[in-house]
Amino acid sequence: VDPNAIMEEAARLAEAARELDDAAAALISRTWNEEQSLRQRALALESDLRRLQSSLDSAAKKKGAIDSKIAEKVDEELYRVRCVINDGDVASLLPSKAHGRFLKMFLGPVNVRATRKEVQLKVKEEYNSYRDRTAFLFLIFPSTLLLLRSWVWDGCLPALPVQLYQVWLLYLYTTLALRENILSVNGSDIRPWWIYHHYCAMLMALISLTWEIRRQPDCAYKQRGVQLFLVWAMMQGVAMLLQNRYQRQRLYTRIALGKAKRMDVVWGETAGVEGQLLLLCPILFILQGFEAFIGLLLLRTAFVGVTCEWQVIVCGILLVLMAIGNFANTMQTLIAKSRF
Amino acid sequence: VDPNAIMEEAARLAEAARELDDAAAALISRTWNEEQSLRQRALALESDLRRLQSSLDSAAKKKGAIDSKIAEKVDEELYRVRCVINDGDVASLLPSKAHGRFLKMFLGPVNVRATRKEVQLKVKEEYNSYRDRTAFLFLIFPSTLLLLRSWVWDGCLPALPVQLYQVWLLYLYTTLALRENILSVNGSDIRPWWIYHHYCAMLMALISLTWEIRRQPDCAYKQRGVQLFLVWAMMQGVAMLLQNRYQRQRLYTRIALGKAKRMDVVWGETAGVEGQLLLLCPILFILQGFEAFIGLLLLRTAFVGVTCEWQVIVCGILLVLMAIGNFANTMQTLIAKSRF
Ligand SMILES: CC(C)(COP(=O)(O)OP(=O)(O)OC[C@H]1O[C@@H](n2cnc3c(N)ncnc32)[C@H](O)[C@@H]1OP(=O)(O)O)[C@@H](O)C(=O)NCCC(=O)NCCS
Ligand SMILES: CC(C)(COP(=O)(O)OP(=O)(O)OC[C@H]1O[C@@H](n2cnc3c(N)ncnc32)[C@H](O)[C@@H]1OP(=O)(O)O)[C@@H](O)C(=O)NCCC(=O)NCCS
Repeated sequence: VDPNAIMEEAARLAEAARELDDAAAALISRTWNEEQSLRQRALALESDLRRLQSSLDSAAKKKGAIDSKIAEKVDEELYRVRCVINDGDVASLLPSKAHGRFLKMFLGPVNVRATRKEVQLKVKEEYNSYRDRTAFLFLIFPSTLLLLRSWVWDGCLPALPVQLYQVWLLYLYTTLALRENILSVNGSDIRPWWIYHHYCAMLMALISLTWEIRRQPDCAYKQRGVQLFLVWAMMQGVAMLLQNRYQRQRLYTRIALGKAKRMDVVWGETAGVEGQLLLLCPILFILQGFEAFIGLLLLRTAFVGVTCEWQVIVCGILLVLMAIGNFANTMQTLIAKSRF
Repeated sequence: VDPNAIMEEAARLAEAARELDDAAAALISRTWNEEQSLRQRALALESDLRRLQSSLDSAAKKKGAIDSKIAEKVDEELYRVRCVINDGDVASLLPSKAHGRFLKMFLGPVNVRATRKEVQLKVKEEYNSYRDRTAFLFLIFPSTLLLLRSWVWDGCLPALPVQLYQVWLLYLYTTLALRENILSVNGSDIRPWWIYHHYCAMLMALISLTWEIRRQPDCAYKQRGVQLFLVWAMMQGVAMLLQNRYQRQRLYTRIALGKAKRMDVVWGETAGVEGQLLLLCPILFILQGFEAFIGLLLLRTAFVGVTCEWQVIVCGILLVLMAIGNFANTMQTLIAKSRF
């Protein structure tokens, strides 16, 4: 090795590094400036839109002031404008309104919005495959516990495995809630309820951790609440598996049709998986009914049983609320879809 | 209102929206392409650097093959190159190596790296003020519990307030761990241990939730473990307050000196707050000793006490481990700093 050659090469690299750093700094600041100017234009467009909408509304109130055909056409144009602002490429540059309190609470003021549609789709696909992976565990975990209980543990659940399972549930629901919030920031149409539903489930997992798992004698009787909780969890697994199958297919159909950009699709459109939805919904309704039933059983256990634990009561109430919310939101989704 | 004017205005807005969307799409794809080309250049630079480093190393092995002065100068140049790749503006465009498993586990494959230094600094400042806000709660929460215990609750902690506190702790440590991982992705030099330390604390909070809080009779004796846990938590609050004061000042000094860009500072440099550090460290060492002491007390409680709960044993071990790790890492930080 020649010392001079090494020195020259080092100097060359240092020079190249400096140039690269300057180029990166220039790109970042230039991009930022261009983004700022687009943001300004978007904000101006938004306020124009609001102004026009209000004058259209006041015109519509005075009967005959505006032809219904004209109003319809204007509505159509304004819908397009709204689509651009809310879902177009420019949307990814605007401060997100959906960036909810939950994400801020956990992550602080960090931006999780992807600007490129490809990345947004990747996040969505990863979310789907994450749900797939967990749905199996969702079935296997509680059913193993219940099987071991009757075969090995002589009708009596030991505390540690159940608590490990509950910790896993807490982790799982927290991650689902975080990921769904991130999806929503990235332009998904997910109904807020499905996210609230996971907040409720997080709460249930937390509460169940503080729930004392009683020992012999008579534990089959005293552990009734925990058993019901496990049965509910199994059910959740079934619902998740079915829902995943449907939703993955839905995403793929949409991508295949080149409709991943939401502006191109009519809202609520099912892109050729209506058949699956008709099959899925009755099963979901049965599961939701079962969920409410287990909630009521928990409440009965609390009021009739040996000791009245507040944990059992709160979990019972949460389950009933979740069942009602799930049912109402599934119905609303179906009604919205049937309009098209 | 004139229907025609409304229609014209709607058409104008729709046209403006279309133009805006096109401009945004063009900007995003152009930026992406330019970023890609910078990434390519950075990768090439990285491999050149590796090659040169290895030939330098092999030259250094053969004695006399290279002058020590030359070697030093080359080292300096290569250090600059490394700084650009790891911390310069181009670093924010490269796939982050630090993007740890923890963030992936909670958030999925989402990018939390900010490209602009201003944003990175804002995230850091928000983290500091978050710590400030929580440090007070950290002191107030457990001390209120302990005071109420002796004044109102007659020496016997009720379960619910303690569990609420433990849930808060779990939430807090989870968010700290998430935020510190995000900081680390954004180029902070935080030692991995401080993050692991929060994983341990998360584990402790989880375990303490499953820890049964016994009632009368003799609860003062049975609740010894919980009490020690609360005392430890108070101590954490004190440590946090002191540390925050120091670290905020450190950040401000660095910003004031225009040294927020890390390339400009010598690593480990304290930027004029060495005095504070000398004051802080003895207090930290005392607190760390106290932490280990409480861990040992917990272990004694478990082995000598009425019932031997695994929760108490594991928490005791964790506290001792955390104390050792904290001590070792504080020492290493001091040693690294004293070298300059
Ligand atoms: C009813 C149902 C099948 C409708 O699904 P859908 O056709 O995808 O509904 P929408 O058209 O309203 O979906 C809009 C968006 O929300 C998402 N979404 C809908 N329901 C969701 C859910 N439960 N969880 C997460 N995301 C959901 C969709 O993926 C879609 O995302 P995108 O805009 O990024 O493509 C679905 O909501 C569902 O399975 N709900 C029942 C869940 C349940 O009750 N579980 C518990 C039973 S015990
Ligand atoms: C010893 C100590 C004061 C050194 O702080 P420092 O001078 O900032 O240390 P460094 O120079 O190594 O800091 C490097 C980076 O890590 C960060 N950092 C250091 N210690 C940290 C900690 N405990 N938590 C979070 N971040 C920390 C710094 O803010 C800095 O970030 P930056 O690169 O974004 O500016 C600090 O690590 C500390 O307070 N540790 C003790 C904590 C403890 O023992 N607590 C429990 C007692 S019971």
